[in-house]
Amino acid sequence: MWLLYQFPLCPFSRKIRLLLSEKNVPFDLAREDPWAASDMFFNLNPAGRTPVIVNAEKNITIPDSRAIAEYFEETVDRNPMINGTATQRAEIRRLVALFDENFYADVTAPLLSERMKKRILRQPPDSGALRNAMKMAHGHLDYLDWLIDNRPWVAGSTMSLADLAAAAQISVADYLGGIDWAGHEQSRGWYAVFKSRPSFRPLLTERMETIKPPPHYALLDS
Amino acid sequence: MWLLYQFPLCPFSRKIRLLLSEKNVPFDLAREDPWAASDMFFNLNPAGRTPVIVNAEKNITIPDSRAIAEYFEETVDRNPMINGTATQRAEIRRLVALFDENFYADVTAPLLSERMKKRILRQPPDSGALRNAMKMAHGHLDYLDWLIDNRPWVAGSTMSLADLAAAAQISVADYLGGIDWAGHEQSRGWYAVFKSRPSFRPLLTERMETIKPPPHYALLDS
Repeated sequence: MWLLYQFPLCPFSRKIRLLLSEKNVPFDLAREDPWAASDMFFNLNPAGRTPVIVNAEKNITIPDSRAIAEYFEETVDRNPMINGTATQRAEIRRLVALFDENFYADVTAPLLSERMKKRILRQPPDSGALRNAMKMAHGHLDYLDWLIDNRPWVAGSTMSLADLAAAAQISVADYLGGIDWAGHEQSRGWYAVFKSRPSFRPLLTERMETIKPPPHYALLDS
Repeated sequence: MWLLYQFPLCPFSRKIRLLLSEKNVPFDLAREDPWAASDMFFNLNPAGRTPVIVNAEKNITIPDSRAIAEYFEETVDRNPMINGTATQRAEIRRLVALFDENFYADVTAPLLSERMKKRILRQPPDSGALRNAMKMAHGHLDYLDWLIDNRPWVAGSTMSLADLAAAAQISVADYLGGIDWAGHEQSRGWYAVFKSRPSFRPLLTERMETIKPPPHYALLDS
């Protein structure tokens, strides 16, 4: 059995949870907060980051969400998520990077810092940083609107790892109150479809201690 | 012909230049400074980052260094750089991520900010940030020493994209005076072998305007 080290609001772990569920790979969860990581965890991943996935029976340990995604793409044929020609696969991977790196740096990381880490440290959030993250979110959703206007799914004609990466980042930002859907009907429609998938349910019902999502977060029609 | 948009001290572009040279794929260079990027460049890559590779004849545009690396791995069989079993490939990819993300964030990015961007902006460097980057570099080189002690190349028995990612980051940090090799004989030996490869030569002779590397930077025996 696979064991995924993660914490509830880690967007990269959410991407892998969605991927494994969509590919019907069973897994258990182990809670690991990277800001309070144990020596055991640094031994699993010297980068000190979640997610890390472990299969003790097979003696396999894989850190890094993109390395994990490529591994399951290579070893589990069903429901491919990095599919198509080499050029189409490149389009999927560049969009995964756009959400993993740019959306994360611009939106998810500052929201996690202001609304989660500072709560843990009992510091007040910086309202300027929060406003800026929400402004950056609008820019990213404008681009997502444009993608969804031009193709059925984020990277092309079928659902791919790019959809999972986008939904994972957006779900954490939405949990932390950083997403204003007004004016983003295409993205909202795409995300509503996503929220209703069985793979998404466990994420929507999960809560991170003391941090409450806004009322619309887990509603399937908003 | 492939055209790679890059600037001389972009570590991610250096990784792709090494990869294409090692795989004998011919390419031209186009200079693009992301901090002064044109609208044309944002049209090529909404993420606004280098590298981006373009093949006008084939109408292919690929941003993101890992998407580019996977594309050439899939389309050019010779000299594979993400090779082996799925588990070995995962090990290569997790080490690429370690250098692309952790080494970059801890070492290369602060050095580029203090020693390149601030020079362009005519601001003084922050000596505390520089000291911290050099301290973090020692920690990363300790881990690289350990890897080289335990395997012939960074990710295993053959040269891989992990070696190229590590050498690309280290070469930029070394250019910017951030690497102190004292106490890192294993890493130094591995890097000396790397510097003497034909793929590395163009990087060592290239200079970024007004920023001079330390005397040892381009020497093959140090």
